[in-house]
Amino acid sequence: MNGACPTPPDVSSGQKAAAALVTSLQGARSTPGFRPGWPRGLGRQFCRAASRKRRQSQATLSLLRESKGPTGICSIKGKRNQNLRGKLQRAGRNMSPKITTELLRQLRQVMKTSKYVTEPIQAYIVPSGDAHQSENIAPCDCRRAFISGFDGSAGTAIITEQKAAMWTDGRYFLQAAQQMDSNWTLMKMGLKDTPTQEDWLVSVLPEGSKVGVDPFIIPADQWKRMSKALKSAGHVLVPVKENLIDAIWVDRPQRPCKPLMTLDLSYTGIGWKEKIAALRAKMVERKVLWFVVTALDEVAWLLNLRGSDVEYNPVFFAYAVIGTDTIRLFISGDRMADPSTREHLLLDSALEAEFKIQVVPYESVLTELQAICAGLSPKEKVWLSDKASYALTEAVPKAHRYLTPYTPICIAKAVKNTAEAEGMRRAHIKDAVALCELFNWLEKEVVKGSVTEISAADKAEEFRSQQNGFVDLSFATISSTGPNGAIIHYKPVPETNRALSGNEIYLLDSGAQYKDGTTDVTRTMHFGTPSAYEKECFTYVLKGHIAVSAAVFPNGTKGHLLDSFARSALWDCGLDYLHGTGHGVGCFLNVHEGPCGISYKTFADEPLEAGMIISDEPGYYEDESFGIRIENVVLVVPAKTKYNFCNRGSLTFEPLTLVPIQTKMISVPLLTQKECDWVNDYHRKCREVIGAELKSQGRHEALQWLIRETEPITKMH
Amino acid sequence: MNGACPTPPDVSSGQKAAAALVTSLQGARSTPGFRPGWPRGLGRQFCRAASRKRRQSQATLSLLRESKGPTGICSIKGKRNQNLRGKLQRAGRNMSPKITTELLRQLRQVMKTSKYVTEPIQAYIVPSGDAHQSENIAPCDCRRAFISGFDGSAGTAIITEQKAAMWTDGRYFLQAAQQMDSNWTLMKMGLKDTPTQEDWLVSVLPEGSKVGVDPFIIPADQWKRMSKALKSAGHVLVPVKENLIDAIWVDRPQRPCKPLMTLDLSYTGIGWKEKIAALRAKMVERKVLWFVVTALDEVAWLLNLRGSDVEYNPVFFAYAVIGTDTIRLFISGDRMADPSTREHLLLDSALEAEFKIQVVPYESVLTELQAICAGLSPKEKVWLSDKASYALTEAVPKAHRYLTPYTPICIAKAVKNTAEAEGMRRAHIKDAVALCELFNWLEKEVVKGSVTEISAADKAEEFRSQQNGFVDLSFATISSTGPNGAIIHYKPVPETNRALSGNEIYLLDSGAQYKDGTTDVTRTMHFGTPSAYEKECFTYVLKGHIAVSAAVFPNGTKGHLLDSFARSALWDCGLDYLHGTGHGVGCFLNVHEGPCGISYKTFADEPLEAGMIISDEPGYYEDESFGIRIENVVLVVPAKTKYNFCNRGSLTFEPLTLVPIQTKMISVPLLTQKECDWVNDYHRKCREVIGAELKSQGRHEALQWLIRETEPITKMH
Repeated sequence: MNGACPTPPDVSSGQKAAAALVTSLQGARSTPGFRPGWPRGLGRQFCRAASRKRRQSQATLSLLRESKGPTGICSIKGKRNQNLRGKLQRAGRNMSPKITTELLRQLRQVMKTSKYVTEPIQAYIVPSGDAHQSENIAPCDCRRAFISGFDGSAGTAIITEQKAAMWTDGRYFLQAAQQMDSNWTLMKMGLKDTPTQEDWLVSVLPEGSKVGVDPFIIPADQWKRMSKALKSAGHVLVPVKENLIDAIWVDRPQRPCKPLMTLDLSYTGIGWKEKIAALRAKMVERKVLWFVVTALDEVAWLLNLRGSDVEYNPVFFAYAVIGTDTIRLFISGDRMADPSTREHLLLDSALEAEFKIQVVPYESVLTELQAICAGLSPKEKVWLSDKASYALTEAVPKAHRYLTPYTPICIAKAVKNTAEAEGMRRAHIKDAVALCELFNWLEKEVVKGSVTEISAADKAEEFRSQQNGFVDLSFATISSTGPNGAIIHYKPVPETNRALSGNEIYLLDSGAQYKDGTTDVTRTMHFGTPSAYEKECFTYVLKGHIAVSAAVFPNGTKGHLLDSFARSALWDCGLDYLHGTGHGVGCFLNVHEGPCGISYKTFADEPLEAGMIISDEPGYYEDESFGIRIENVVLVVPAKTKYNFCNRGSLTFEPLTLVPIQTKMISVPLLTQKECDWVNDYHRKCREVIGAELKSQGRHEALQWLIRETEPITKMH
Repeated sequence: MNGACPTPPDVSSGQKAAAALVTSLQGARSTPGFRPGWPRGLGRQFCRAASRKRRQSQATLSLLRESKGPTGICSIKGKRNQNLRGKLQRAGRNMSPKITTELLRQLRQVMKTSKYVTEPIQAYIVPSGDAHQSENIAPCDCRRAFISGFDGSAGTAIITEQKAAMWTDGRYFLQAAQQMDSNWTLMKMGLKDTPTQEDWLVSVLPEGSKVGVDPFIIPADQWKRMSKALKSAGHVLVPVKENLIDAIWVDRPQRPCKPLMTLDLSYTGIGWKEKIAALRAKMVERKVLWFVVTALDEVAWLLNLRGSDVEYNPVFFAYAVIGTDTIRLFISGDRMADPSTREHLLLDSALEAEFKIQVVPYESVLTELQAICAGLSPKEKVWLSDKASYALTEAVPKAHRYLTPYTPICIAKAVKNTAEAEGMRRAHIKDAVALCELFNWLEKEVVKGSVTEISAADKAEEFRSQQNGFVDLSFATISSTGPNGAIIHYKPVPETNRALSGNEIYLLDSGAQYKDGTTDVTRTMHFGTPSAYEKECFTYVLKGHIAVSAAVFPNGTKGHLLDSFARSALWDCGLDYLHGTGHGVGCFLNVHEGPCGISYKTFADEPLEAGMIISDEPGYYEDESFGIRIENVVLVVPAKTKYNFCNRGSLTFEPLTLVPIQTKMISVPLLTQKECDWVNDYHRKCREVIGAELKSQGRHEALQWLIRETEPITKMH
């Protein structure tokens, strides 16, 4: 799954607009994007209820349009040109704006109601995210979509007494324009004449205005920028404790509070006590007294617990505050009543005081943190991620604040220990078995004309769910054939659903959560005879995939230095792809995680280290025609080299994904001998490892398919 | 010349220490490093007087040691281990500290003298640079070296009433320790326990202290950081108008004021009026009313003038302030009395008022800028580089300030027009003729045992000076054989001078300023029989050089994305080099210029564009043994590709340097067929272009050498 792939806001092609349509049609809601260091607003931004119900997407559509007005499809079609209409139809979007007049009236009412604000505010900002800066957010957190109707992954709404404006990027210009009614002004970010939120506010606000925002939802760095700009123009940014959208959202869904799952040492390799001890060692090293865990996957990893509060990510709503001799876990509901959880966390055991976990309600994190800070002596520090919310950051007085872009948990979590790496290996073997079954099934069924993108995705999920330890998908399956494959974040819905055939390229980007680990794999197949051009493009992508996978590089190298390796073969022919090459992958956690990755965008990535796991997924997309992507999840491992400059040591990658790469798609003469050898070595390993597993699972037909698909290729001399 | 090669402060090997010694021995003085976006403190940081007199370096040494005390060489040797002693001896440095007791007493006196400071200051900061943030600084600007004795390229001195401390990086720990007396505390930057300047000041200053600095020498961003830190501790940073070092430096050299050279259209392609009109168009676009030109090469480029006030860089001390209808040139001396300069600048001609240049004394830039700003209406802006001095930046009230990392002049200057590109081509042809003569001469002379690093460098200069339009060298020649080649910034002096022989690798990194353009080329040769290992390493470096030179990449690609191409072959074998791969090259201007380059460090480089000129110079260095570097200057040109994704267009490089790469050093089996073809194509072009020029200059023996050296290589199958 391509998560390292920001579609640059300044490159807004029809393809991307169509992708955005598809995304939104499927029930995308506002999300703040991927947390640490990753570009915001990527990936799968779907609220569970909608995304799983793609077969009933008409119903979903009605739901989304519950406030829809008279403006219908016809008028939209009438306004657009042929090409765009084609895309809209292909993407299956029948969009109509949400009528927000009444909602905005109510919001403006509460903006001056003393129950909610001490003094009336003249503007209210509604950002995309939740309080944990999660990539996927729960339905109860989709506030920006509720107030505006615009449910793309990225956007900020600002409502003043007279106006309502929405800032979003090039991916969503069309979608936002369609989903919002005339109460809203669309602010197209990246265009020259679009004002920033700050400049716009300054231009429309009466003198000495107050601008409100929920301090839990705005990250501290954004607050700082906005506050400074407003202040210099004579206004003031104020935190509004109660969320004003919640105040008017009568049927707002409950915050999810699903049961927890405990993970024992065979999965985690390290007990939670040990993890906390290691964290405390880091705290001593940095001379901090307290550490506040705000990211959901960091809480889950630290305590060896998993949940299902947020879609696709096995996390649960919680905070943790770690002191040098105390542990506070902020979590709601009766989840701590479960005996296995109590046992796992040793809640009823006699144990060292410093490992005694105090369970505190989720909502009390702010007051507890304030109480902690009130007791600090001078020079005593509290460690937070610099992505934490303004509310929690502000609770720590400046002199006591210690902020870093990556927390020690984020960095420790990225480097998988032996048990985790073994778990990831097992997960990928099971995942490969499922995919061998799927591809074998597809080969037989596609010719009959009865397989569609949706039924193929369903079948993939069916085969995966047969595997031991299967928990869930790790993201919404991208099952796309022909022109749909060129829509990078495509997900099939009935309106766009296309039958697989022997005449088109099929791209499947999918993955699952197993109790052992998380998978993410893309294969591009042809079930008939690919054209020479399709094979040529596929081979360039494969060359890029191999160039990264086989790269040897010194310890301490950052991932962004490898990005061009993936593109070089495409560049030579004037081709390229507009997304990054790789993202960190969690172990039975988020399929996108920091702090490492491979991208032409140089975010503050940390150096690659043995034990880190990332994806390697170059692609090529031909608008209106086809999409190609070849993705493996790879483990960073030490490399043996002839020399060892400065004793630095070298690293390379070991593919964890072991699914055949369709040799039919390869134009072998374009490969070097080394690249041929790589393909043959890779397929030998697939045959050995996955073959053995298929055999032991008694999946003989899939085994035959695997053996056929892993025949060596030969370069003629 | 390797200018993109920061030796990371945290990697301090003996090699680097030795390099630093050599540098300093040769009369290096404090310099602020390379200006726009480049790591500071690189390259050739030599005060002219000393560097040109390497044959009399004993005299230079005496000069440098005029205040030297009783501590001599023996005691230093006695304190150091064998290995280090070896390096010291090889580097030829006989170091002894400058005795600064009296100078510091005088400085502390003026720090409380009302003639210089309105109120006494408790500390005085002495940075490295000049008022223009030049890479090479004039002797009159070597103030930090004067007060401390430490003359490395990077360092900041702070003197309080009781203490004196020097911050410098890993390259200079040893040198600084040797050159400074016991009055000074060495602050080793990059080490964990070393306090920052701010923290140290806060720890030693009495309450409510005033810290002074010359506002012309500290860049605005550094001022801001320091001022903030001091303020939060109850102190204050104050600008001290008169430089306090100058106040006690009785025999401080005069600021150079050498004659100017005018360049006509055949060299510049664009007249200065046109350049100013283009600048004004950018000013209109950004809605600014004034532009302040502070970098010396930007003033020179804008007015199509050259000078020789600073070593190796054909620039002159001046500022320019461009208004929408005025031009002010701040320049000293009677340089505007020269008739050809008056004619060039149309000083006596009737011309449009907006192109009338007002000539103003250099020193009055601040008061004039203040006067301009006093007349500004609200919202009227003044554009400055964010690297400009605090003095000039502060002269513009914050509300009127418009700062950018790269000025429009810097960006326009980087993209060479046809006349400039042709000039660079001509310069490189002449330079290649000189090097063919040199290498032919070396081949005959080295066997006699009479050629040394110094005499080879002299001979190179001699051959270059025979070429039409030769002005000067473009940097201090790096002429190094055997182990000296491993010292990346080596420059031979009598104490280190080594005879060239048939048993060692010889590395020559040299370049010149011609009226047509600037050159910079490195060749690595063997005059006997290289070992298999030497050939292997040379071939990896060559593969890296070719990988960059032959790279095809989309328009808009930043140079740092190409850096790994240069390293890939070395990485595969566990090797690497600790410097960047390329730097921008000026056209008869600074051999290092922004805003583009190729480096693993992602500074804020601008995308590569057709017309830009950079160096391509990977290397490999084996401590105590040999150094290899292969450097061409290359022009960014459009590339023809089979396809054209998103209509973006592609770029590649055309080598301007046309000097044979010694095929004797190549292990041909390690090359791919494509790489072989590249070498043969390159040599064919050398033979054609340089051969024709050698012939027309009647240099028949060198022509024969060229023909021999450009014989095609063949890969056995």
